Amino acid sequence: MPQDPDTLRQSKLDMAISLLACGVDPKRSALFEQSRVSAHSELAWIFNCLTPVGWLGRMTQWKSKMDKVRGHAASHAEILADESLTTGLKMGLFGYPTLQAADILLYKATHVPVGQDQLQHLELARDTAKLFNKTFKKDVFPKPIAITPPETQRVMSLRQPTAKMSKSDPSDLSRINLSDTPEVIQNKIRRATTDSLGSISYDKKERPGVSNLLTIYSTMRDITVEEAVKEFEGIESTKQFKEQVADAVIEHISPIQAELLRLQADQGYVRQVLDEGAAKAAEVAHKNMEEVYKVVGLK
Amino acid sequence: MPQDPDTLRQSKLDMAISLLACGVDPKRSALFEQSRVSAHSELAWIFNCLTPVGWLGRMTQWKSKMDKVRGHAASHAEILADESLTTGLKMGLFGYPTLQAADILLYKATHVPVGQDQLQHLELARDTAKLFNKTFKKDVFPKPIAITPPETQRVMSLRQPTAKMSKSDPSDLSRINLSDTPEVIQNKIRRATTDSLGSISYDKKERPGVSNLLTIYSTMRDITVEEAVKEFEGIESTKQFKEQVADAVIEHISPIQAELLRLQADQGYVRQVLDEGAAKAAEVAHKNMEEVYKVVGLK
Repeated sequence: MPQDPDTLRQSKLDMAISLLACGVDPKRSALFEQSRVSAHSELAWIFNCLTPVGWLGRMTQWKSKMDKVRGHAASHAEILADESLTTGLKMGLFGYPTLQAADILLYKATHVPVGQDQLQHLELARDTAKLFNKTFKKDVFPKPIAITPPETQRVMSLRQPTAKMSKSDPSDLSRINLSDTPEVIQNKIRRATTDSLGSISYDKKERPGVSNLLTIYSTMRDITVEEAVKEFEGIESTKQFKEQVADAVIEHISPIQAELLRLQADQGYVRQVLDEGAAKAAEVAHKNMEEVYKVVGLK
Repeated sequence: MPQDPDTLRQSKLDMAISLLACGVDPKRSALFEQSRVSAHSELAWIFNCLTPVGWLGRMTQWKSKMDKVRGHAASHAEILADESLTTGLKMGLFGYPTLQAADILLYKATHVPVGQDQLQHLELARDTAKLFNKTFKKDVFPKPIAITPPETQRVMSLRQPTAKMSKSDPSDLSRINLSDTPEVIQNKIRRATTDSLGSISYDKKERPGVSNLLTIYSTMRDITVEEAVKEFEGIESTKQFKEQVADAVIEHISPIQAELLRLQADQGYVRQVLDEGAAKAAEVAHKNMEEVYKVVGLK
């Protein structure tokens, strides 16, 4: 997991800039770096003292990492028995779900927006809250509820529309980046995988490519998929459909790109937002951590 | 690992009182509670991201805990493969050695006084320092060296002098407590396991009981074991020997007990010592943690 320090520093700042450019309002939301609030790791340690090792050994993310190394699926028992694997993999990966539970519960969060792939980790956070409350006979933590986007809003790869659009996909043509120029966006959508039917209809199973573009279009225009399909009624060619999707993406993304450029030129402001966010988060975190320390008897 | 909160609070205070009564000088040594300095768990988390899972799976303390549950010794691979075990045991136990490495390295400690049973954990701390420095190409942490008491100073159980004297031994007769009255101490040493030879000589293998009492005596009087043996030359009965050992213990322990009582009556002072200790420790910890965050790129 160790990263190149300079790259990590830059990535953290870039991530903050992207979030702000996309519309996260620092007046409404405390935007901060986790490592700036020490209570995250403090609470993770307390949770470690309650969490059975087996809970973590069953996490899909840990298991799939090892399946990748081994090249085939394996049971929890098989995996942990393979010393060559457990020696090569880091504790930070194995124990990450307890840190994530701490990230959520430290603020007594009641609702957490997550993707489908994070539902198991949120379940662990719920189990951790339950276990803590039961162990110390006090309702300290609420059991957080997941907010997952509807399936129709799941954006898929432009090249392989049955897989999700991802930053880690080796093909840049598979995704739209916030930094893409209008020409690049037009080109990527023009080359997006679709089918040879002329008309436009939504059918995720039979027409994944066209359906994905409909999802993107409706999201960009802030309308429903049904409304989008209606707009394209009577359209004759996929080419024309794709042009309109590209236009919608470019139109939606342009102000974000302008904001990105503005923020990149004003990194002092971004750093200030992160400082103020950390101070705001630390205040809540500190208060809740004091309560935890008192409940467990460490204070 | 969860404890009763009230008991834990009291145990922590009692431990501080005992250490102060035994002579730890808060002007020379920062005496503090680990949970009061957040950087311990922060650094432990950073170390987790570097430490292979297998390093921890091989720790004797973890393995022996599970051997106890299973009732027989087992290999690392066997243990981790047994889901019923890994489910029942806590992450806090499995991951404890990284926290211990953080406890040491956070202060860039160069020498650590430890018992024989902790040498493997100190070795892990050395490996962690080496791995961190190598990964980030900077000599941040020194490799700490163990200071272990000489074998002749190892105090063994009064009942079973081949096992070490321990607070967790179910028999109270096996140990001297700081709270024991002179009568109790006399009785415990009178009943200590020895042999039927009349004379007094040091031979840990053949005469473990007598040798243990010689160790205790020489430590109480601050003389060498050889000098102690010399003192008891010509003594006729083990009874007389034991009386002199008991006297030495009582004489050594009395001022400590008086100090214990004084401190128990002045818990405000003890709390103040712990507060000041934590502030002193936090200052060093914070400085070193800032360096770590900069080196890894989190700041």
